Amino acid sequence: MRRGAGKMMEEGMAFEDVLAELERFKEQDLKYTRILSSMCTDPHPIAKIAHRLFLEANLGDPGLFPGAKAIEERTISMIADLLGGDDTVRGYLTTGGTESNIQAIRAFRNAAQIRDGNIIVPQSAHFSFDKIGDLLAVEVRKAPFDASFRVDPDAVEELIDDRTIGIVAIAGTTEYGQIDPIEALAEIARRNNLFLHVDAAFGGFVIPFLDSHPPFDLSVEGVSSITIDPHKMGMSTIPSGGLLFKDGTLLDFLSTPTPYLTSKNQFSLTGTRSGATAASTYAVLRHLGRRGFKQIVDRCMQMTAKLRSGTESAGITSPVEPMMNVLTLEVANLEQVIERLAQSGWRVSVTRDGFMRLVIMPHLTEPIIDEFLSDLEDATKD
Amino acid sequence: MRRGAGKMMEEGMAFEDVLAELERFKEQDLKYTRILSSMCTDPHPIAKIAHRLFLEANLGDPGLFPGAKAIEERTISMIADLLGGDDTVRGYLTTGGTESNIQAIRAFRNAAQIRDGNIIVPQSAHFSFDKIGDLLAVEVRKAPFDASFRVDPDAVEELIDDRTIGIVAIAGTTEYGQIDPIEALAEIARRNNLFLHVDAAFGGFVIPFLDSHPPFDLSVEGVSSITIDPHKMGMSTIPSGGLLFKDGTLLDFLSTPTPYLTSKNQFSLTGTRSGATAASTYAVLRHLGRRGFKQIVDRCMQMTAKLRSGTESAGITSPVEPMMNVLTLEVANLEQVIERLAQSGWRVSVTRDGFMRLVIMPHLTEPIIDEFLSDLEDATKD
Repeated sequence: MRRGAGKMMEEGMAFEDVLAELERFKEQDLKYTRILSSMCTDPHPIAKIAHRLFLEANLGDPGLFPGAKAIEERTISMIADLLGGDDTVRGYLTTGGTESNIQAIRAFRNAAQIRDGNIIVPQSAHFSFDKIGDLLAVEVRKAPFDASFRVDPDAVEELIDDRTIGIVAIAGTTEYGQIDPIEALAEIARRNNLFLHVDAAFGGFVIPFLDSHPPFDLSVEGVSSITIDPHKMGMSTIPSGGLLFKDGTLLDFLSTPTPYLTSKNQFSLTGTRSGATAASTYAVLRHLGRRGFKQIVDRCMQMTAKLRSGTESAGITSPVEPMMNVLTLEVANLEQVIERLAQSGWRVSVTRDGFMRLVIMPHLTEPIIDEFLSDLEDATKD
Repeated sequence: MRRGAGKMMEEGMAFEDVLAELERFKEQDLKYTRILSSMCTDPHPIAKIAHRLFLEANLGDPGLFPGAKAIEERTISMIADLLGGDDTVRGYLTTGGTESNIQAIRAFRNAAQIRDGNIIVPQSAHFSFDKIGDLLAVEVRKAPFDASFRVDPDAVEELIDDRTIGIVAIAGTTEYGQIDPIEALAEIARRNNLFLHVDAAFGGFVIPFLDSHPPFDLSVEGVSSITIDPHKMGMSTIPSGGLLFKDGTLLDFLSTPTPYLTSKNQFSLTGTRSGATAASTYAVLRHLGRRGFKQIVDRCMQMTAKLRSGTESAGITSPVEPMMNVLTLEVANLEQVIERLAQSGWRVSVTRDGFMRLVIMPHLTEPIIDEFLSDLEDATKD
């Protein structure tokens, strides 16, 4: 903490002066235009309007905000339908993928009643699973992936023991955009009487709109729950997550009684929670519909293909064929290249295995991709 | 889940039609004007503008949003200064009181390295501590309160054993607005070498501005950490919480490495998190300053006193003298009275001990208090 910084609060400051100060901070933030390192994007215009409309709504006290609550319920219905759910599905809108994954594993742990239990996650799982293991006091076992960066089902099965609570599969891995072999994992989960959680935080709003894709969602027998993040490819505002349980009774393992509120109990990890982000997510889904989402995903996939062929022409290979709008590249002198790209305003990231990682989000355009390709070629020259 | 509801997403819907639909849902939500049951309020006007300005900023990836990150750091400094912190304080902006309390107890648990540990919380503690016990696999022991609804320090001490990790004290209880005897609890914590967390989710932006108050914050020797909620009396937007550790190294027990992001590790429970709410909190603190907050708290306390004397005149007694802007009342036929008040648009709540509970937030005014008093008198007549 900076000494004396707190004195900033002493006297108060004129409304306009505070806003001018905020504008100066805002100038330090990057625009998304040249960001290829993030799974977040500019919210859709309708998301921003909807967010503002419900800014003060608290879904933690739904009796006061029945309109916002109805919006949440309709949103869950739409997402359940998108992800192969039927009438038994229950869920809620979370603060994002981490909360969704925490709550899925917590429900499994509580339902299984296994002490000192473990879960098996792919080596490719998001770093938040380390956080979850610590939080829930559950051991996190990591199964290696195959040559295509998808988890090896045999390796998963070998890690199962009598303290295993569940398995996690990723539909749209953070680093490679791959889809784990969900059907094979579901078969293993069924055979061993284990829960199976699908983390589709990124893939949930991509995979259903691809021209073809392997089964990955609640329609696969053996899948217990699924995470989907509206604030990623759902183009909603932060913090917007979603969690669905195929067997809705699993939600009851997250129940906390809520005296002195308008509800009797709550399932969310947080107490007070935003109605604004629920409205934002609802508005995007309702406005775009499946057709609108398909157009956006098509465009991202076209840009990904362009980036892939452009980099190939420049002699830069990919360790794996992109299944969605995430492209990884084998780049020599990676740190130096990233530094050079940064000087031109580009932000890219790196996988744990040392590949350059590019996420091709809706805020990008074909001309931006051309410009990036040109700068990447320059940056990789000696 | 409603069958076929998901079909709502099928074709998409015109921008204006979606907004018109949202407006209809919005009409179902209550305005705060007649809400006396909630610790949330309408955000301050400057909070709304600041929120909008940083809507797309993600503090989970701070290298992309250095302006929003600087705002968070300055906000933590201001709050630390407000709550008696010095240069060793570290913390971050959370999604609210529940996340702050989870993370404080998690840090204690990880630092203490006690297996199957327990924490001792006041009987008056917020229901979220039950959630926290389940989440972190920590036993939650509840200490009874005395006649003034403050925890009894002797009862706390009796519950300590060799598996106790820490003690929780409440500065501004959700139900009675009371302040636990923090100095006595701190003495017990020091003597038993335990952590002490102060939950000032509600009181953090009230107590410092009261004309007089007992010591309650990081300035008390033995207090390890404190929760404060900007989205309650801080008049910021949802979700806005704050968590401060007096010894900043405790924060490191929450660290998760973050590959493929612009940061090396993160301390927050969520991954992607809002820069908008940080800007919102910052703007309110900077604009109001201590003087502005004092005016608002003074006004809330005056309205509380008015409500107190008005109810007394009507023969309605309070079980305890209000220490802040929360008033509880002994009301016969409580359910019927609440129902009658609801018919006039009022929302009040109930403590677990069966008293009527009123929270006197900044969205109320003296004329509204007069109107409420009149309706309450009517509702309590046979």
